[in-house]
Amino acid sequence: MQNMNREQLFEQIRAKRSFLCVGLDTDVRKTPGGMPQFEFNRAIVDATAQYAVAFKPNLAFYEEQGAEGMVSFEEPCRYIRERYPEILIIADAKRGDIGNTSEMYARAFYDTDLTDAVTLAPYMGRDTVDPFLKYEDKWAVILALTSNPSADDFETLKLANGDPFWKEVLRKAKTWGCEPHGQLKSSTNEDRVMFVVGATRAETLREVREIVPDHFLLVPGVGAQGGSLEEVARHGMNSHCGLLVNSSRGIIYASGTERFAEAASSEARKMQAEMSALLEGKGLLK
Amino acid sequence: MQNMNREQLFEQIRAKRSFLCVGLDTDVRKTPGGMPQFEFNRAIVDATAQYAVAFKPNLAFYEEQGAEGMVSFEEPCRYIRERYPEILIIADAKRGDIGNTSEMYARAFYDTDLTDAVTLAPYMGRDTVDPFLKYEDKWAVILALTSNPSADDFETLKLANGDPFWKEVLRKAKTWGCEPHGQLKSSTNEDRVMFVVGATRAETLREVREIVPDHFLLVPGVGAQGGSLEEVARHGMNSHCGLLVNSSRGIIYASGTERFAEAASSEARKMQAEMSALLEGKGLLK
Repeated sequence: MQNMNREQLFEQIRAKRSFLCVGLDTDVRKTPGGMPQFEFNRAIVDATAQYAVAFKPNLAFYEEQGAEGMVSFEEPCRYIRERYPEILIIADAKRGDIGNTSEMYARAFYDTDLTDAVTLAPYMGRDTVDPFLKYEDKWAVILALTSNPSADDFETLKLANGDPFWKEVLRKAKTWGCEPHGQLKSSTNEDRVMFVVGATRAETLREVREIVPDHFLLVPGVGAQGGSLEEVARHGMNSHCGLLVNSSRGIIYASGTERFAEAASSEARKMQAEMSALLEGKGLLK
Repeated sequence: MQNMNREQLFEQIRAKRSFLCVGLDTDVRKTPGGMPQFEFNRAIVDATAQYAVAFKPNLAFYEEQGAEGMVSFEEPCRYIRERYPEILIIADAKRGDIGNTSEMYARAFYDTDLTDAVTLAPYMGRDTVDPFLKYEDKWAVILALTSNPSADDFETLKLANGDPFWKEVLRKAKTWGCEPHGQLKSSTNEDRVMFVVGATRAETLREVREIVPDHFLLVPGVGAQGGSLEEVARHGMNSHCGLLVNSSRGIIYASGTERFAEAASSEARKMQAEMSALLEGKGLLK
């Protein structure tokens, strides 16, 4: 059973010399030879676990299997928990609803203790996030500036104060959940909240760090979407590393053949080597 | 199998003299005597179907049951489809993700054809909504101005152009998906997109109607949350009715006792009677 605060996550990053998160966006139509999803995931997990500090299964790719969706989602989570208990599991679910409903989503993900973090959409405000912050040492990962083409529809809209909308999300959300809750071991916002910031806007990471210098950022968009790991580290790394860089398709479909696991391992190892050098360069390794 | 465009939905509203949507936010901890969730839902559906044009199961209340979550969700949907094929089924899921992921969510909800509409969070922009608009005569229900306390965190933020953020959501989203897609029977935005606007801000409905005069609005917040049906109709009803007013807790927990179904029926009938008068007053009944 994993429950990591920021300090413990940083320890893992130092131990593995990596801040890699592997996204399990496993499309059953794309597994070689029609291999079952879990078999594919298990091979990916085994092939990349030594290079990764987090796995991020994407709920949509499990839910689309209909009634069996949640079973399919839980399989890789359970496997990771058993075999690699040191690895953080992030449910990429992008949930977001009013208080009593959000509480149910928090139960869905945290009562089984199969995940450590859930991605959340901030549109409806604090009500969405609060119930997730009531679980000990679990994380709420809030969308700020995403890497998709239509992120500019709303996320970067200019507010009356001159700032883009995403900055207001950071400013408000970093004040949430800071009160100590009952038995919580970690009560600071930085130990419970992460933000999603796309790698395709690496230069913006500098502006992100002006607002949230100490938080962990979950960074998608390196590789396939064009973001550079070096740029992300240059503008986004802090004294606790503060970065989890995700790669999904770039790793799990690195070959697209029956040798997918070897290709995934090789790709993850390459990223880990680059991350190790970046951590070293920043003086963060022991 | 239900697939309704705006005109057909209006026909249902006229036939039942009602624009009531019953929210199936069924908390397994609150069913009388620990009655199983589906048994409770079935009783609610049978007790209220004659007064309602839509049912809205809330995914969170099914997902929290873990691995069996999607089975629990599909049970009432299947029952409604079989017994009351004229009733619209809205999956209250508030999904929202990038293109390839959103496509998987659309498959999850629409490939089984157990739902007609899905609620979506607009934070990440058009990418979130597009895949849902590729299904014939299915609806995308986009959050605009919600009824929860923290809606003011972001939804009402003032933009540089002087407008609150939610207006920009309406303005952009009403231009989406308007191109005719392949075999689609209905290709106008108004036939495929609805917006969520809370009843607790009935006076704002007038401003909503300035931007989207012809769209259907899904309106939560009447009853328990304090919104008035009369006010909602006064400011929000258009020549196609254009309203689906939702009640969840106010109906399903109307008594909280073993006579919950009778109480739900009575509450739904009361709302339908009021709705009938409002439709009549507007001259929308035949």
